[in-house]
Amino acid sequence: MIYRDTVKPEWVDYNSHLRDAFYMLIYSLATDAFIDAIGLDDAGRRAQHRTLYTLEAHMSYLREIKEGAAVHVEVRDRKRIHLYLEMFEGEGADAVSACEQMLMQINTSGEPKAASFDEDIAERIDAQAKVDAKDARYVGRVIALPQRRA
Amino acid sequence: MIYRDTVKPEWVDYNSHLRDAFYMLIYSLATDAFIDAIGLDDAGRRAQHRTLYTLEAHMSYLREIKEGAAVHVEVRDRKRIHLYLEMFEGEGADAVSACEQMLMQINTSGEPKAASFDEDIAERIDAQAKVDAKDARYVGRVIALPQRRA
Repeated sequence: MIYRDTVKPEWVDYNSHLRDAFYMLIYSLATDAFIDAIGLDDAGRRAQHRTLYTLEAHMSYLREIKEGAAVHVEVRDRKRIHLYLEMFEGEGADAVSACEQMLMQINTSGEPKAASFDEDIAERIDAQAKVDAKDARYVGRVIALPQRRA
Repeated sequence: MIYRDTVKPEWVDYNSHLRDAFYMLIYSLATDAFIDAIGLDDAGRRAQHRTLYTLEAHMSYLREIKEGAAVHVEVRDRKRIHLYLEMFEGEGADAVSACEQMLMQINTSGEPKAASFDEDIAERIDAQAKVDAKDARYVGRVIALPQRRA
């Protein structure tokens, strides 16, 4: 469990459901927690002029959730900076959404440019949760219409 | 131009850049404007017990933007409920991010279930901007690591 939150009143849309962008906010805060967990916390980032940029994010909305819902996020997989997260409501075992992200470490000491992870950071990344590819159900998805309309 | 906004102080992350989730919020508000534009505004949705759910969203982060930046969103393509948007800063011609979304219309009169668009709505969708597939640069993307590390 990398992050825990409660669906706030201001996050709810006209459907009385968590607005799509605020699923992403919960994942964004979970990614901050992940970044702290691998040793790239605020102090470390400033000292080393390093930061992380999100290059891409792909959200799968699986189930609507309402104001006040207790949610938590699990890191299901990561390959270097390829992160796969799932969000759950309460103690439910079925994910309410999934989020695949590509993050890149940036050296900010001059003009921002990509930087490889130091060995200790890389080891902490390797120590984080991994799932078998077959269990990462919402990875590598392309957005496309079904062949036939309903 | 479907939507216009300014990057708010509370949307900025530890990099002093617009946090990834708030790009998505801007697209989410732009999608609301799109939904209104095709005649599925709040009154119409309530009267017809119809709404739209986001099924998937794929964000491409192309360039960082800072607090106070003026941004606007253009609808670049849509196929029924397959929406492709790009975000711009000020009068800049190069997109700062792109967002592909899959939306589904839902009939909410009973247990929520998928519903086809009425003819007038479908016509308004068809009348919205379309670009050639070759110009929709960030469509159909799969998140993957490059073959070789930098």
